[in-house]
Amino acid sequence: MRILVVGMSGHVGTSAAAALGERHDIVGVSRSTDPAVDLLDPASITAAFRRLGRFDAVVSAFGAAPFAPAPQLTADDLTAAFEGKVLSQLNLVHLGLDAVTDGGSFTLTTGILAREPVPGGAAAAMANGAVESYVRTAARELPRGIRINAVSPSVLASAPEYFDAFRGFAPVSDERVGLAFVRSVEGIETGRTYPVD
Amino acid sequence: MRILVVGMSGHVGTSAAAALGERHDIVGVSRSTDPAVDLLDPASITAAFRRLGRFDAVVSAFGAAPFAPAPQLTADDLTAAFEGKVLSQLNLVHLGLDAVTDGGSFTLTTGILAREPVPGGAAAAMANGAVESYVRTAARELPRGIRINAVSPSVLASAPEYFDAFRGFAPVSDERVGLAFVRSVEGIETGRTYPVD
Repeated sequence: MRILVVGMSGHVGTSAAAALGERHDIVGVSRSTDPAVDLLDPASITAAFRRLGRFDAVVSAFGAAPFAPAPQLTADDLTAAFEGKVLSQLNLVHLGLDAVTDGGSFTLTTGILAREPVPGGAAAAMANGAVESYVRTAARELPRGIRINAVSPSVLASAPEYFDAFRGFAPVSDERVGLAFVRSVEGIETGRTYPVD
Repeated sequence: MRILVVGMSGHVGTSAAAALGERHDIVGVSRSTDPAVDLLDPASITAAFRRLGRFDAVVSAFGAAPFAPAPQLTADDLTAAFEGKVLSQLNLVHLGLDAVTDGGSFTLTTGILAREPVPGGAAAAMANGAVESYVRTAARELPRGIRINAVSPSVLASAPEYFDAFRGFAPVSDERVGLAFVRSVEGIETGRTYPVD
């Protein structure tokens, strides 16, 4: 398969590309590649698909959300989480659909905060829950047999800077995260969220 | 208890107020009351709390999201769903927290689309999932013993205009919806979503 990995500069994107790259052709893009793809900038998505052509699978490892205690989350914080992790990835589906081959797939990235609370994680939880619920419904409406799933990892062993925010959580290896993307891309399921924890 | 019901003009707000009004003092507000409260307008929230004082419970029955097949959902559609059903209700928590008494509660409204797909429901699913995941984490961070839950009804028997979108779903009565709000407001749980289906 020919697979686009968006967010190639991060830990999740790297893990997905490494696991899928064993058997597939990977085109990895990020804000700093050529073409540059920033999911907050719809024009960059459209331009990238025009230049890069069609894919059998599109993987998004894009997303960030502010951390702050729930009572302090302002409208700006919540909007940043929505735009950074939800609208960004859902725009990729909307704008990239025509570039995915029949029977192809999208795999988005959420995270354990959709199902487990940690201090300061309410905005990220909101964003992850939004993507997971979208995926469940959208899966039934994508055309041409195109599937859509999400991968939802716990704190990454390769990102120790987050350990303080996830006390008591068992960090997951890059290999385990990569496997979930393989399962989504090479499997037959749609509308699922694959937890990695 | 003294209970604020926001979104008093709709079916859910009416059901919540009827059930809670049997034993409590209800202050119902909507876009067309005095004071007018529009959760899309943060200034109207702040002004209403300044004028109406403190409450033992705040109930939000506010929220709307566009219906369209997932592949057609534009950034504007997704943003409208986020602002209409997520940011609106979470702003009420952020701006209303100081007006809730110790041990009081917030109860927000989501809907069955967070867990069951119907045609055209992906934007609403996204919004409902966002609120439910937020509630789960925010519950652990609200001060002074304040609780927060969500009520998630299926299609309402009192809203037959939605039956076409929910073929095969058993409509739920106003009484059943009202009971879920009573359970949230008068119970001891926090961080929960109460399904009504």
